[in-house]
Amino acid sequence: MTDDPTAAAIGSFRDTPDERLRTVLERLVTHLHAFVRDVRLTPAEWASTVDFLTAVGRACTADRQEFILLSDVLGVSSLVETVGAGDDPEVTDATVLGPFHVGASPVRANGDSIDLVGGGEPCVVAGTVRAVDGTPLPGATLDVWQCDHEGFYDVQVPDRQPPGNGRGLFTTDDAGGYRFRTVVPAPYPIPTDGPVGDLLRATRRHPYRPAHIHVIAAAAGHRPVTTHVFVAGDPYLESDAVFAVRRSLVREFTVVDDPDRAADLGVANPFRDVRFDIVLERTA
Amino acid sequence: MTDDPTAAAIGSFRDTPDERLRTVLERLVTHLHAFVRDVRLTPAEWASTVDFLTAVGRACTADRQEFILLSDVLGVSSLVETVGAGDDPEVTDATVLGPFHVGASPVRANGDSIDLVGGGEPCVVAGTVRAVDGTPLPGATLDVWQCDHEGFYDVQVPDRQPPGNGRGLFTTDDAGGYRFRTVVPAPYPIPTDGPVGDLLRATRRHPYRPAHIHVIAAAAGHRPVTTHVFVAGDPYLESDAVFAVRRSLVREFTVVDDPDRAADLGVANPFRDVRFDIVLERTA
Ligand SMILES: [Cu+2]
Ligand SMILES: [Fe+3]
Ligand SMILES: [Fe+3]
Repeated sequence: MTDDPTAAAIGSFRDTPDERLRTVLERLVTHLHAFVRDVRLTPAEWASTVDFLTAVGRACTADRQEFILLSDVLGVSSLVETVGAGDDPEVTDATVLGPFHVGASPVRANGDSIDLVGGGEPCVVAGTVRAVDGTPLPGATLDVWQCDHEGFYDVQVPDRQPPGNGRGLFTTDDAGGYRFRTVVPAPYPIPTDGPVGDLLRATRRHPYRPAHIHVIAAAAGHRPVTTHVFVAGDPYLESDAVFAVRRSLVREFTVVDDPDRAADLGVANPFRDVRFDIVLERTA
Repeated sequence: MTDDPTAAAIGSFRDTPDERLRTVLERLVTHLHAFVRDVRLTPAEWASTVDFLTAVGRACTADRQEFILLSDVLGVSSLVETVGAGDDPEVTDATVLGPFHVGASPVRANGDSIDLVGGGEPCVVAGTVRAVDGTPLPGATLDVWQCDHEGFYDVQVPDRQPPGNGRGLFTTDDAGGYRFRTVVPAPYPIPTDGPVGDLLRATRRHPYRPAHIHVIAAAAGHRPVTTHVFVAGDPYLESDAVFAVRRSLVREFTVVDDPDRAADLGVANPFRDVRFDIVLERTA
């Protein structure tokens, strides 16, 4: 008999048939117990924690995942992307998926606009998808989604945006290139009407994410990447509520005042021009 | 801008007005992130964890607290009692409260029986409540509750046990003594029909708790203790599903075959005799 609940709890997993599950649970108990000892968590604090998790559970519905939000604001979601990444610094950094990738994006042709509403600053995003050795990857897919110039995704305001607004599934051309028209996205707050919002308020944290466009790039024989391109100069780049910013993913959304180029690209003048090249890692 | 989600998440709590909350959150993030890095938690494993916590939340009702159960089977509830305890080895060890302390126990006089049903092995529990220096503590209260000889608490089987069966609130006499009659409790399984039960099955753990009687002892000017007395020889003492056993809390439930003593105590012969003395720490 041991009087040490940590040793007893770790030992209790010894017969777990799945080796990986055993390791994960043993290490989870190790770190969780180290936390409790470290802060000498009191029974009252433990009870508050149970109440908080219960409230997080109660806030989860078909359309709302408050546990993901909790993982996001604790930096865990972002960290999982980091530790899952390979070591090659040339490969485009991954970052969080976020809650707004809902179903399949509408298939669109290079040069199409994903802005079905208008009203924001016109913007052209273009780049190439390449392998680490520089080989362009024709036929790669780019699933993109973003909020509008007021910070709302289509699914959040179905009365103001048609389904598929701000979304598109593009395929790279023979040179590995892609291009689409859109509007400059705005920073937006994560939902604060649940227990995670209470946590942000209690810790004096703002709920904003810096403006970004989501991208999932995939090509045959390569590891897909889930990432963002962030708008340089955004006031929340240093304090993203979900800690998803990577320096390597920030791009200038350059102002271009050139009526001929605007006409060529099919946008109003002036417009913003963004270059976002993506590098994928070959699968083994 | 940092590319390190751990540093960013820890730093995000810097303006928390409540100093203790800031410390707890900083250390929580530190250990949680250390866990993710340690096992290199994959996005798929992270998603399963979110699903599991969501299922735990869904299992919580007015009568069922699956997060406490989760904390219990990970040894966290037991550890919180351990780290909250003082250093004096003479003081009676605390252990988990458990989910069956519901409302006020019926007030009873020393010598009363808490067994309102019959059918189990008769048992007499007695002891004294004392301060660390040996002074008896008259007027101390002992709130006791236990399951029956088949492992059920009154609230679990309201058709078979009247409310208050297995429960009593006793007060120590002038010599600090208490005594009550009962039946020997049985080992019992924690609920396994929810996600925590799935976890136990996946890890080949049994759900049993060794037989015990719960006690909360309290006296004016002293720190109350929430504890158990465990039945020596129980097959689950080494593998309590919630890791609450402390060597110091195990007692012989000695068989006594003595018709005269049985008659004196008001129990059938033979019966079991248990001595459980309690030592409380003075509050500062
Ligand atoms: Cu740790
Ligand atoms: Fe987003
Ligand atoms: Fe119990």
